[in-house]
Amino acid sequence: VWRLPARSSEVPVHPPGTADKDANCLGARLDRAIDEFLRGRPGLECAPELADELRAVATGPGKRLRATFAWYGWHAAGGPLDGPDADAMVRALVGVELLHCCALVHDDVMDRSRTRRGRSTCHVGFARRHGAAGWSGDPGRFGDAAAILVGDLALAWADDALVEAGFDAVRLRRGWRPWRAMRTEMTAGQFLDVVAGARREESVAAALRVALLKTATYTVERPLHLGAALADAPPDLIRLLRGFGQHVGLAYQLRDDLLGLYGDPRVTGKPVGDDIREGKRTLLMVLAVERAERTGRPDVASLLRSTFGNADVTHELLVRVKAGLHEVGAVRAVEQRVAALTARGLRILRRAAMPEAARAELARLAIQAAERHR
Amino acid sequence: VWRLPARSSEVPVHPPGTADKDANCLGARLDRAIDEFLRGRPGLECAPELADELRAVATGPGKRLRATFAWYGWHAAGGPLDGPDADAMVRALVGVELLHCCALVHDDVMDRSRTRRGRSTCHVGFARRHGAAGWSGDPGRFGDAAAILVGDLALAWADDALVEAGFDAVRLRRGWRPWRAMRTEMTAGQFLDVVAGARREESVAAALRVALLKTATYTVERPLHLGAALADAPPDLIRLLRGFGQHVGLAYQLRDDLLGLYGDPRVTGKPVGDDIREGKRTLLMVLAVERAERTGRPDVASLLRSTFGNADVTHELLVRVKAGLHEVGAVRAVEQRVAALTARGLRILRRAAMPEAARAELARLAIQAAERHR
Repeated sequence: VWRLPARSSEVPVHPPGTADKDANCLGARLDRAIDEFLRGRPGLECAPELADELRAVATGPGKRLRATFAWYGWHAAGGPLDGPDADAMVRALVGVELLHCCALVHDDVMDRSRTRRGRSTCHVGFARRHGAAGWSGDPGRFGDAAAILVGDLALAWADDALVEAGFDAVRLRRGWRPWRAMRTEMTAGQFLDVVAGARREESVAAALRVALLKTATYTVERPLHLGAALADAPPDLIRLLRGFGQHVGLAYQLRDDLLGLYGDPRVTGKPVGDDIREGKRTLLMVLAVERAERTGRPDVASLLRSTFGNADVTHELLVRVKAGLHEVGAVRAVEQRVAALTARGLRILRRAAMPEAARAELARLAIQAAERHR
Repeated sequence: VWRLPARSSEVPVHPPGTADKDANCLGARLDRAIDEFLRGRPGLECAPELADELRAVATGPGKRLRATFAWYGWHAAGGPLDGPDADAMVRALVGVELLHCCALVHDDVMDRSRTRRGRSTCHVGFARRHGAAGWSGDPGRFGDAAAILVGDLALAWADDALVEAGFDAVRLRRGWRPWRAMRTEMTAGQFLDVVAGARREESVAAALRVALLKTATYTVERPLHLGAALADAPPDLIRLLRGFGQHVGLAYQLRDDLLGLYGDPRVTGKPVGDDIREGKRTLLMVLAVERAERTGRPDVASLLRSTFGNADVTHELLVRVKAGLHEVGAVRAVEQRVAALTARGLRILRRAAMPEAARAELARLAIQAAERHR
């Protein structure tokens, strides 16, 4: 079992951020590729609402994090950034983004989330249209059904994007292994997340397992693995990239936990305290409960327990929760873990043989994941 | 736009049914292949409930209709029934079955169906386990979440099964076109179905569109197309097989509509009147409403309208609905259409150049689809 590293005060240093240009360039290429892919899909003429919604989700203001990690995994393994192979890779990244659209849309149904990236979630939007049209039946059920179908479409089309990207059979077979793992782990991670909520799970091990599957693996490690495998990376490089990805991915999730409570909702696009309303056993929260009990603050522990899953939690209660997390030292501890994980990831990164430009980009992404505000 | 053919009294004749052996043989091979595929899937050790549920759905007492049509589409195009290529094809059929598992599990969530193939539906089963375990939160929401994830897993693994079946790149590319269409059309068909219910759609054209997408195309035409394409069929054969499939598939759906009301629930595995409870605008029902109005039976028309979507419809009311459908001649008309569609399909089948054994099997399947009791 992989474990959280011990705390450390080591603080990562910003690498030279000269490659911003490349990242921007990837964003524009990816947007074009998503647009081209969605334009070229027959079979939905009779249900354009599904395709329109998927387009809105896929081209919305996301961070394209998974595609970016896959792109630099490819680059790290010597994959070209221009030319026909690079174009195939960008088309494969459309698959990575569409897969994530499925995850977002379906997770939002399961979690009953109402806002995502500053926009109504898919099921809420369809429910609203049902209500506005005065259709029969329950708008909520209609919204859920439509969102389930948008997610299914995204998942099926994600595979199409990879299969049709233009790789030869050997490359495709190499890439399919991490791709297959990524989709299975995405599903397993979300299931464990839902189960943890239902069981009022409080163990750090369970929260860690969810964070590892849903974020460390699905968001960072597997995209890096996919990109590297498609570029025919040697096993050693894949191993180091995956190790780097696990550390950075876990740091990303811990930062996410913090942003969910302390972030600016105008910047994050999510209301403060959504994890609490949904009863999510985030690592931040289970670490805080554990700390509260260990440091003789049962009042904070029971405050946290009583707010889990409280859909109508008040602003005042959230303020008390936030203060409680500070008082038991949970915020500081998690900040330290984020820094330690990032440092450890960067150390692994330094050991891997790769073009220096790719290393600088990956370092930049790692630090961005840890220090971001959205 | 493809239209329902004019009524005809032509009744199809049973072809020699000597090939039952082959079909049984396919069933056993497919079961083994499903089992092998599911055994060989890593990544779900931490969420075995998902894999167990998918196994139960995939290996349950289904008709394997889509896989069977794909298999004989393959055979019609000269694909071997034994040897390594045939084995690859059987592994691809696992994908066809898994895709259908996704459709079943997700449709059941959307339709709130409680029983399927004589067993609790996936979301109902998970909700019950949630309740029995005394977990927190709403059991229904938990059941839905788990079922969405089981369906996602089935969809992702369906693609894995096709990609990993063992076809070379050229064959895989040929097969991917109908496969891609099949998945998109499946989603579009279910969306139109849900929308038709919400809009209280009564037009025959809308009901026909749903039946064409959900059943004629997804269940018969595309599986035939997939099998034929994987066996490198010439365009003419593909065209005729698809035409055959559309007619047979529509007949299948009309039979399904009838069985839903007049079938034996112990044989069909579904309670009588589920379509009515769910407010489904089946072809049978919209044809009946149209007929009732045209033949001066507004009482029957309003009886039908008032029962659509009545989740608590009584046995007595169902008996009245069933009698009403007979009285306005809807049952007889639909039976005639089933026979006419089957006859037309069989005529198309006779025009296609293919091994006689494949033709006999396809004819047998067409007649079984039209005359089945479950």
